[in-house]
Amino acid sequence: MSAAPAAGFWWAREDLGFRDGRLHLAGRDLEVLAAGVEGPCHVYSEARILANLDRLHAALAGTGVPSRVYYAMKANRFEPLLQALAGRCGVDVCSPAEMHRALACGFAAADVSFTGTGVSNHDLDRLLAEPDLTLNCDSIGMIRRIGERTPGRAIGVRVNPERGTGYAGAEKLTYAGDAVTKFGIYREQWPDALATAGAHDLTITSLHFHVGCGYLTRELDAWDAAVGAGLAFLDDLPDVRTVNVGGGLGLPHRAADAPLDLSRWAAILARRFAGRGVTVAVEPGDYIVKDAGALLLQVTDVERKKDVTFVSVDGGFNLAPEPAYYDLPCEPVACAPRSFDTASWKPVTIAGNINEALDIWAHAKPMPELREGDRIAFLNAGGYGASMSSNHCMRGDFTEMLLPA
Amino acid sequence: MSAAPAAGFWWAREDLGFRDGRLHLAGRDLEVLAAGVEGPCHVYSEARILANLDRLHAALAGTGVPSRVYYAMKANRFEPLLQALAGRCGVDVCSPAEMHRALACGFAAADVSFTGTGVSNHDLDRLLAEPDLTLNCDSIGMIRRIGERTPGRAIGVRVNPERGTGYAGAEKLTYAGDAVTKFGIYREQWPDALATAGAHDLTITSLHFHVGCGYLTRELDAWDAAVGAGLAFLDDLPDVRTVNVGGGLGLPHRAADAPLDLSRWAAILARRFAGRGVTVAVEPGDYIVKDAGALLLQVTDVERKKDVTFVSVDGGFNLAPEPAYYDLPCEPVACAPRSFDTASWKPVTIAGNINEALDIWAHAKPMPELREGDRIAFLNAGGYGASMSSNHCMRGDFTEMLLPA
Repeated sequence: MSAAPAAGFWWAREDLGFRDGRLHLAGRDLEVLAAGVEGPCHVYSEARILANLDRLHAALAGTGVPSRVYYAMKANRFEPLLQALAGRCGVDVCSPAEMHRALACGFAAADVSFTGTGVSNHDLDRLLAEPDLTLNCDSIGMIRRIGERTPGRAIGVRVNPERGTGYAGAEKLTYAGDAVTKFGIYREQWPDALATAGAHDLTITSLHFHVGCGYLTRELDAWDAAVGAGLAFLDDLPDVRTVNVGGGLGLPHRAADAPLDLSRWAAILARRFAGRGVTVAVEPGDYIVKDAGALLLQVTDVERKKDVTFVSVDGGFNLAPEPAYYDLPCEPVACAPRSFDTASWKPVTIAGNINEALDIWAHAKPMPELREGDRIAFLNAGGYGASMSSNHCMRGDFTEMLLPA
Repeated sequence: MSAAPAAGFWWAREDLGFRDGRLHLAGRDLEVLAAGVEGPCHVYSEARILANLDRLHAALAGTGVPSRVYYAMKANRFEPLLQALAGRCGVDVCSPAEMHRALACGFAAADVSFTGTGVSNHDLDRLLAEPDLTLNCDSIGMIRRIGERTPGRAIGVRVNPERGTGYAGAEKLTYAGDAVTKFGIYREQWPDALATAGAHDLTITSLHFHVGCGYLTRELDAWDAAVGAGLAFLDDLPDVRTVNVGGGLGLPHRAADAPLDLSRWAAILARRFAGRGVTVAVEPGDYIVKDAGALLLQVTDVERKKDVTFVSVDGGFNLAPEPAYYDLPCEPVACAPRSFDTASWKPVTIAGNINEALDIWAHAKPMPELREGDRIAFLNAGGYGASMSSNHCMRGDFTEMLLPA
């Protein structure tokens, strides 16, 4: 794709950038696309999703270790997107309803893993109806309750390696580490966990651990140590055939973020798994879908309030909660900028249409001149956007579309 | 209601407390009620809602100033609840969909006010179809766009008094104050706002300002000053008949919180509005519904992880987001405690069933012994619970019921 007059936007890539002055994703003019629908629109590029998956598969193939990818459905459960992935990878689900959606979208039960928490007996009754499902147990109680219902079954065990990492500054997204978390079985519980499985003739065929969300290259040393700590549990598990190192592969959200060095990541797996005789599994969500999606909103007002220029748009944080709640911004890009002379751009605050003070998409963001009716694409809305959305203020309606590869 | 052996729970009141060892709300045994439904249950007491409204009406009547209450629908839009309120007060809405729900539930258009932000032209087309609706304009652009569509209409104007207050520590919930917010028209914009209204023959018949969420007695001095600053705009508005001082009346969330002193609150309004010749309007949400509701969840596991006892339940923060996002806890109360000797209670961490580290209902909360299958009522879930809920992890299903007065 030909670059804009002022090239070098940090987020630009071959399939995402300006062509003839208009923002294109997957060959589609987003201004034209948005004009065809009323109200907010979540759009995803199938080609980018498959490219992200292919890159991951290639890196894993380079390790020389047998491998599997389970896409974490909770990042984005749009059915056409799931249908596009079915047959190309496995899928990780965290509720019975997600399992049913996976099966309905074409995943075989043997390609579905369940990794949940706070699992109720009602959940178990639904999950255990699928004998080929991989079930990762998050607590000793869950092991026991499965044993009581289906003695002799194969199970997975989720352990807590007590080391974690993730998006810099986002402590809320760390799943293991110094603070005691609800996730996984701790070393102190290990003898009890093994005894409970043994008492019900459960065979532990997979080991699982997840140590955070959104790690990038700078976090890889911490991640390496966490993988080592998780693998230490393997010594007591002769029947394990698969070790799932979780998801959490991050992607850039800001200009200063360097992308994850996937070859270094793969080298860690190659070294840690060499000679183990097990399959390595990973369960990324964001990494597969987040940068394939954008939320398209329209400017309703541009107004100076004291020393701040507010650009109001017709959708709020309830449609993509991560910017407001986790300080993980969705990069705003004008779909048809009036100027590419970025030196002339002026800082604005972009505000959503929900009656909450925190409903701000961006603070002091340099943008070209914007007017009522203009459209803005919020990048990186493909993961934990629509899937976490709410109908707060009854402003939860949006169109969702997958641009075919 | 007879007190429990160990009386004095800070949240107990005549219609909420233990009877024969079981938690009752509005005369209903919550353990029995929860056992009759599968999965999470949001329950609301109609009697408590009406009592909250009556208390507010009585305090307002004591001011000697004509008054109106507009219930803020965004706090809870459950239809039976709205039907119970219709005819007893007005309702404030913040989207066209909320307006339609208000009308469908029995509110007359003349009893509906709209106070929104980021209002699109599509929104306006829907809102302006109701000529009796009170429309509070949040921006000059909105005044102009209404004027272009319905010249000569009566409008309200929302101003920003540049003073705010709210739940201690919850800066995210302050709507006016030192930081420039998206809400309302600022003093510097005032001549433009008046000129824009005049250019389209719009008559400004109501004035609106809202200065924060959840103020209690300790915040009343700041609130008083904010009301004074808001009323200063009245000097230029000869046609105003109603001044809406917003919502934000808070309620206790923790043992240390003292309830709002409603008589002091009313005395401020009496003093500020004396001789003004206008009606005072208020638009509370939480104050009407929050303490009338509880979310009923069931314990799935009790398990010691290192030095923390985790009590897992079958519902997560997606069903009532305020504890996780705003640190406004929903008080957990065992529905059928095994012991009322609170000195014997031990601290536990109560965790939801969503795969996010922040999905914790309570940290280090002293509770009686809990076992799998026990039920916990999370109090103060009546406001911004179901209405802000999401289907994250496809764990968004719940039963909702209004206990009749």
